[in-house]
Amino acid sequence: MCRWLAYSGSPILLDELLYKTDHSLIDQSLHARLGVETTNGDGFGVGWYGATSETPAVFRSIEPAWNDRNLREVASHVESPLFLAHIRASTGTAVQQTNCHPFRFGKWLWVHNGLVREFPRVKRELALVVDESLYTDIEGSTDSELLFYLALTLGLEDDPPGAVERMVGLVEETGRRQGIEHPIQMTIGTADGTNVWAFRYSSEGKSRSLYYSTNVRTLREMYPERPRLQEASDESRIIVSEPIVELAGAWNEVPESSYGLVCEGVDQLHPFRPR
Amino acid sequence: MCRWLAYSGSPILLDELLYKTDHSLIDQSLHARLGVETTNGDGFGVGWYGATSETPAVFRSIEPAWNDRNLREVASHVESPLFLAHIRASTGTAVQQTNCHPFRFGKWLWVHNGLVREFPRVKRELALVVDESLYTDIEGSTDSELLFYLALTLGLEDDPPGAVERMVGLVEETGRRQGIEHPIQMTIGTADGTNVWAFRYSSEGKSRSLYYSTNVRTLREMYPERPRLQEASDESRIIVSEPIVELAGAWNEVPESSYGLVCEGVDQLHPFRPR
Amino acid sequence: MCRWLAYSGSPILLDELLYKTDHSLIDQSLHARLGVETTNGDGFGVGWYGATSETPAVFRSIEPAWNDRNLREVASHVESPLFLAHIRASTGTAVQQTNCHPFRFGKWLWVHNGLVREFPRVKRELALVVDESLYTDIEGSTDSELLFYLALTLGLEDDPPGAVERMVGLVEETGRRQGIEHPIQMTIGTADGTNVWAFRYSSEGKSRSLYYSTNVRTLREMYPERPRLQEASDESRIIVSEPIVELAGAWNEVPESSYGLVCEGVDQLHPFRPR
Amino acid sequence: MCRWLAYSGSPILLDELLYKTDHSLIDQSLHARLGVETTNGDGFGVGWYGATSETPAVFRSIEPAWNDRNLREVASHVESPLFLAHIRASTGTAVQQTNCHPFRFGKWLWVHNGLVREFPRVKRELALVVDESLYTDIEGSTDSELLFYLALTLGLEDDPPGAVERMVGLVEETGRRQGIEHPIQMTIGTADGTNVWAFRYSSEGKSRSLYYSTNVRTLREMYPERPRLQEASDESRIIVSEPIVELAGAWNEVPESSYGLVCEGVDQLHPFRPR
Repeated sequence: MCRWLAYSGSPILLDELLYKTDHSLIDQSLHARLGVETTNGDGFGVGWYGATSETPAVFRSIEPAWNDRNLREVASHVESPLFLAHIRASTGTAVQQTNCHPFRFGKWLWVHNGLVREFPRVKRELALVVDESLYTDIEGSTDSELLFYLALTLGLEDDPPGAVERMVGLVEETGRRQGIEHPIQMTIGTADGTNVWAFRYSSEGKSRSLYYSTNVRTLREMYPERPRLQEASDESRIIVSEPIVELAGAWNEVPESSYGLVCEGVDQLHPFRPR
Repeated sequence: MCRWLAYSGSPILLDELLYKTDHSLIDQSLHARLGVETTNGDGFGVGWYGATSETPAVFRSIEPAWNDRNLREVASHVESPLFLAHIRASTGTAVQQTNCHPFRFGKWLWVHNGLVREFPRVKRELALVVDESLYTDIEGSTDSELLFYLALTLGLEDDPPGAVERMVGLVEETGRRQGIEHPIQMTIGTADGTNVWAFRYSSEGKSRSLYYSTNVRTLREMYPERPRLQEASDESRIIVSEPIVELAGAWNEVPESSYGLVCEGVDQLHPFRPR
Repeated sequence: MCRWLAYSGSPILLDELLYKTDHSLIDQSLHARLGVETTNGDGFGVGWYGATSETPAVFRSIEPAWNDRNLREVASHVESPLFLAHIRASTGTAVQQTNCHPFRFGKWLWVHNGLVREFPRVKRELALVVDESLYTDIEGSTDSELLFYLALTLGLEDDPPGAVERMVGLVEETGRRQGIEHPIQMTIGTADGTNVWAFRYSSEGKSRSLYYSTNVRTLREMYPERPRLQEASDESRIIVSEPIVELAGAWNEVPESSYGLVCEGVDQLHPFRPR
Repeated sequence: MCRWLAYSGSPILLDELLYKTDHSLIDQSLHARLGVETTNGDGFGVGWYGATSETPAVFRSIEPAWNDRNLREVASHVESPLFLAHIRASTGTAVQQTNCHPFRFGKWLWVHNGLVREFPRVKRELALVVDESLYTDIEGSTDSELLFYLALTLGLEDDPPGAVERMVGLVEETGRRQGIEHPIQMTIGTADGTNVWAFRYSSEGKSRSLYYSTNVRTLREMYPERPRLQEASDESRIIVSEPIVELAGAWNEVPESSYGLVCEGVDQLHPFRPR
């Protein structure tokens, strides 16, 4: 099990969401409530988009997030209008930087919570589908990174929802051919520097939790006394595995088998159908 | 909060106690039951005495014990008749090897669970008591290591119980002079390669948990069907912050304000009185 | 032996100086030319001042700088008008984050190349001079950090040159009382977010190398074809243990027993006299 | 470039060869003489066979060997009759434990110095040859580990020299089909707990250095005053990338395109011919 968070909106210091809320992502590294495990101590990562480059920065470490001083330093000094963060609980693969999320390819970032069931039985067959030109960019050994490279192979850069639907379809077909009942369990966040897509799906229809924050204008009316809400831009949106602060009306579950798009204009929510 | 374990007896592979029991020390790094925190993920260490040298080996790391591959390798290939292991939950000081237990001086090892309350207020005064010749051997920044060097200064090598009683007396006197109500909370394990001493004490009289295993001959009679007990030598003894296996009659609480000595001959239990 | 670099001027990406010159600081971690050792692989650190906080960020790691991916990520995405970076070659003390430079106190940063000779013999006596309120902030075990806290005790925040002169005077007096012929060898860089001070001194009068860059206006006239020089602000100044690029006329040795001040207005160079 | 060492003989403490000779393997991590680079600071590993298990222990770390305290502790307390050690200089792949040598499969260990040229261009094609049942055991991203799994696929456990010859033949054929002139450069050491095989080969016929020690009986006669030689068993043999001590007559170059077998009875040297 893992936890992740995506933010899009007016530039804020990373630590506003990673540290400074009651049940912040870093707090969840030690005390997650909604997951199978309470501890997500097998590494972490944060990827952020900035002003100086189209390519996002990625800071990843194998140490538990709760005590990592460099993460605290970076988070309290770096502002970003769009970032993804992830805390990891390994399901068996090695604890190493190249297995930490977010994964990056060009301007794309990718985080995953969940697993490919019986991954060793399908890994090779899935790896063969990865485009030849992409294959050697795979650096780690996780299912999560392989899902990313499959999605890239299947068109992520042109049609993110379609590519993820094709990727999941492929994983399910491959798994079922091996007699695996429920091949995939996932929430996925991906971004290209402008938009964020968030997916919630599992073969068994009981997906890991995923929430998106209520429209900021609505929240401001509900909570006129909260200074942070007054400062947040209208477009600000948080997507997160489990709420980072208790606030009635602030969090909405991403429905089963659906995906959301956070973008300029009106955010969207659609059904997700593996192909 | 931390957890520790000491073993003395016929040589066994370290992993027999670190990994292979239901609620082994490594399991306690992720799922402690009796402590304030369930997670002890801020580093670990194991010190063992061997055949080739009077000086024990010390292996320490800042990674969580539960996923450390090197610990698993060493533990499954190294046998020892006397070892101390520790998993750490930092109470604020840096996560670094030199803050991990066991601490070593010559042939001595030292592990500690607990804290010196308001340590920053008394640290300098206590550090000045450390013998000049020992002062520069202090490498870390913890209260635990300083307690060790104070005990060494106050005669640990000649009279361990007396030195620890004088050390605690000094800490309590120093703390109270600063208006600190309950200056110290501790369970401590120390060894010289032949004997193990285990102390349980706190200024408030509510000390962290500490257990010692029942005499092996008695356990064998109680559980004739357990092969591991049949293999264990008569002299084998485990001291541990919380039981590593559920077995009725196998664990005995070290009483409040007392210390035990595991040695050749009859093990002993005595009252502990700070001087 | 270590290497360090300080930059003050118009905001630039850290990697401009850490990576993108022929003999950049990171290149010096593997291939230093002017030092006693060619390898500075025992950790590194960079501290930078930014827009969001008076307190500088400090990113430190025990891994060799040449292969650290997080350093590369941060350096290629963070801009700063004032930063200090350091690569370490341990002279014996532990390789741990708290022994990596820069050290920070409030808005102050501190880097050091050199050593206190026979440090174990004078450490305790020097540590006792550190102000009581500062003592517990010492987290590591190096001479360099202790020099910083001595300078803070002796007035660094009010009169940096005077405080460093008093600190060196104290170290020399203490060392000589112990029969140590040449107690200190140092180049030191320190900054408060506005100014940078750089010191070069050693008891034996043969100090480690230290250079400052030539005035940018002069360099632009000398090298009109160099685009980076055209972009650099008039006030930009680099101070560094060894030149990061070969360019005739670009580097000037800080004279023996002297210190420089980089500030708004005219930079200064003064003699350094331990008190 | 990397450096490695293999020992077979009477049980000795690992540190006898890793630390206690003039130009020990650990010294070579900072000061290699015969290699392309003087620094081998991108991690290390040691694998040893012991008494308690057929499976060797493997201790690997991403820190430079020269300052790793745990390696020093383990090496000074563990005795073994057969061990392989390796210090790494990355040729581009990530610095992570799973990229450190020795690699292990069952009772087999594997170390490599050299590279597969233009590895990204042939990696996928070579990976497809790895037996399906072995594919998911690949944890890292190096050419060295892939060579090991290719050799295992091609019969390493039954016929080590034949399997390595077939593996090299495959790599050369694959590389040449891609227009790569000299596809492979290697010295390789592998062991099964009883025997050690050492290979020296490169497509261009200019292989990295590799030496084996002279027969101990001969050395004893040459150097009757050397106590360590008197203690060493007749069967003791060292194979190493570069000599760990200067001693006339003690080291013999493994010839180009050949391999050696260290075993009970008479050690052997044979030509190596890729198939």
